[in-house]
Amino acid sequence: MKKVRIALLGLGNVGKGVWNILNSNREAIMKRSGYDIEIAKILVRDINKKRTIDVPEELLTTNADEIFNDDSVKIVVEVMGGIEPAKDYVLNAIRRKMHVVTANKMLIATNGQQIFKEAEKNEVVVNFEASVAGGIPIINGINESLTANKIQEVVGIINGTTNYILTKMTLENMSFEEALKEAQKKGYAEADPTSDVEGYDAVYKLAILSTLAFETEVDVNDIYAEGITKIKAIDIEYGKELGYVIKLLAIVKEVKGKLELRVHPTMLPAIHPLANVNDSFNAIFIKGDAVGDLMLYGRGAGELPTGSAVVGDIISVLRNDTEGSNVLIRNYADKEVVPVESFKSQYYLRISVKDLPGVLGKIATILGKNEVSILSFIQKPKKGEFVYIVIVTHETFEGNVNKSLENIKKLEEVNKIENVIRIENLDY
Amino acid sequence: MKKVRIALLGLGNVGKGVWNILNSNREAIMKRSGYDIEIAKILVRDINKKRTIDVPEELLTTNADEIFNDDSVKIVVEVMGGIEPAKDYVLNAIRRKMHVVTANKMLIATNGQQIFKEAEKNEVVVNFEASVAGGIPIINGINESLTANKIQEVVGIINGTTNYILTKMTLENMSFEEALKEAQKKGYAEADPTSDVEGYDAVYKLAILSTLAFETEVDVNDIYAEGITKIKAIDIEYGKELGYVIKLLAIVKEVKGKLELRVHPTMLPAIHPLANVNDSFNAIFIKGDAVGDLMLYGRGAGELPTGSAVVGDIISVLRNDTEGSNVLIRNYADKEVVPVESFKSQYYLRISVKDLPGVLGKIATILGKNEVSILSFIQKPKKGEFVYIVIVTHETFEGNVNKSLENIKKLEEVNKIENVIRIENLDY
Repeated sequence: MKKVRIALLGLGNVGKGVWNILNSNREAIMKRSGYDIEIAKILVRDINKKRTIDVPEELLTTNADEIFNDDSVKIVVEVMGGIEPAKDYVLNAIRRKMHVVTANKMLIATNGQQIFKEAEKNEVVVNFEASVAGGIPIINGINESLTANKIQEVVGIINGTTNYILTKMTLENMSFEEALKEAQKKGYAEADPTSDVEGYDAVYKLAILSTLAFETEVDVNDIYAEGITKIKAIDIEYGKELGYVIKLLAIVKEVKGKLELRVHPTMLPAIHPLANVNDSFNAIFIKGDAVGDLMLYGRGAGELPTGSAVVGDIISVLRNDTEGSNVLIRNYADKEVVPVESFKSQYYLRISVKDLPGVLGKIATILGKNEVSILSFIQKPKKGEFVYIVIVTHETFEGNVNKSLENIKKLEEVNKIENVIRIENLDY
Repeated sequence: MKKVRIALLGLGNVGKGVWNILNSNREAIMKRSGYDIEIAKILVRDINKKRTIDVPEELLTTNADEIFNDDSVKIVVEVMGGIEPAKDYVLNAIRRKMHVVTANKMLIATNGQQIFKEAEKNEVVVNFEASVAGGIPIINGINESLTANKIQEVVGIINGTTNYILTKMTLENMSFEEALKEAQKKGYAEADPTSDVEGYDAVYKLAILSTLAFETEVDVNDIYAEGITKIKAIDIEYGKELGYVIKLLAIVKEVKGKLELRVHPTMLPAIHPLANVNDSFNAIFIKGDAVGDLMLYGRGAGELPTGSAVVGDIISVLRNDTEGSNVLIRNYADKEVVPVESFKSQYYLRISVKDLPGVLGKIATILGKNEVSILSFIQKPKKGEFVYIVIVTHETFEGNVNKSLENIKKLEEVNKIENVIRIENLDY
């Protein structure tokens, strides 16, 4: 059996998952990769930290150069996360002709092009399946399996924390705050949950997916992001009445050669496959011109699922260990991005108004003038000073909705635009 | 741009899909594969047949040797189906050092090992993504993405015809006969639907999936098969009452080193992701020791979805066109197969009995003696001479159920064992 030496950068959750899988499935992995994989070194911040796994101390180092100066290391596995020093390390490894496997969404989303160019120059492979949606083979799916297709649309639930929170709000009638607390207790949400609940985590992942699916360089700053903190129990309830479920979706669509890129809470038909993706599960829905509708569903995080993707990537490097086999064409086009006011969608509008005759007529008139036509509405019985008017529009441009709302806000009968939630029907 | 010449064997639905995709997505495919793909020859049965696509007549031939004797052909795409002459052609192509892409489930399920050995010897690639579940990248998923895992279980809805029929029966209360007629009208079912409705089509696909997932040579004859013709509207109705949906599932599980291999109608919890796979869609659920639960969902048939898989396989050959790159280890073990009486499952039993006191007690006693314990039961009000007793058991061995039923049948109060349907909870 041929031997290969690899090094890990980082020994957090994902690193532990990789260590455990390489040990527990060693024989199967030897058979499938053709190599006996030996972990040569592991870069950690603190050698003496108490760990839940039993790693021989002599493997640990705090000095990255020990790895880069070791010619016998063929693959560097970056599972430390964050941009610096990960970027520096990855580029270093590539320049020393080491293949790289990374789980780092931020790094790939923001510095992917530089890294891939460096890899091409040095004829090494950079694999990053674990950077999006943990164990779900979505990167491989787009890059390898769907190459016959023009991809038209990718719509994903790619943040487990917010999906867990929305599931608890939907199925157990929790408030956002209660559900967040529960998620934190379970370890699904961090003490500072901003990156998850505001949609930033999903933005990085969507940047990677859209770059691959549309072969264009997508800048994270070009992705519109809106979090789930504005979702109230009452919106979920009205959504149900209307046949919708609310999910935080990451969406990219090609519309007349331009890309619509957005992350926001979305109402989905309750019968859509994505609507039934619950708890911390992730799922990605793809529409291709040949394959039609395709969905991949699974664990988007966790040490073992993410480790599964990392180790799969390592095996893939070993199977293709011919020089210059990184054949993926990275000659991306530069597609334009659709501005927010040109997003096309249906909209759910919840407006609190004084219970006076004629108010719905005034609202409807304003919408009509701005070319927003109404699909359905519910007026809710009075509870306090105001009543809610809930309107579902036909598909229209976001700019039209915004112009309407500016004018509706000014009506004296209107108290407040309580919420605006986009609706995706996904032609399902 | 490098050029490559390929040949098609067959120009039926899948062949047409391949032709259309190669033409309509030509530029994207060039960019992704690095090759300009030229279709050199297409083997057909009748050159003068009217076709719905516009193929230059000089490409068509009825003589396979014209293809095999053309050294410039690098890839042979077998989309004719059936075992002979497809097998002969595929082996011929391999021996002439042509790579092979095939969509042929029967061929791979029954002669895969011989074909792969011949391919290894001749250092060519044989890709067969399209042979199972059309456009869903399940072969690539198991062979490439999940290599870090010990797969524990694969459960799939891999026959679109029966899924369409069961969906119509479940959501629109059609009878089996009505739903079958509808499926035939839509082109989902053939005039002779036996292979689909009796589960044989799913057996071939399951043989391929289990061979790959468990790295063992699975013989189609070792797979237990039961079709959906025995499913009555009333079973679907009682299933709903109990919280279950009926699907034709193809199941393989490793139980103490042996494989349970079976295709049969199954009751699934209504909230399981597979229970919500409707119409002619397919889906495959995989449990891996690292990745956890994973599901792939999409179009299991149709010219374009299946063509998507075939063309993806062609591109994959072109990207890896280094000699001997067919590194997939095909050194399979030979795992034992669990006999039917040792299947472990929960069971739904529908029994028609005379409405006499004590009959449930007698049935329960027999079940108890055979170590079958009852989870729940419903007794249905009298309609005709008999009443139905519906029993859901705890998990038990199939042998115990069968022994019980033999004795229950003999009770004078019992008219008939109307139906026995396995229930899978899939630990979801």
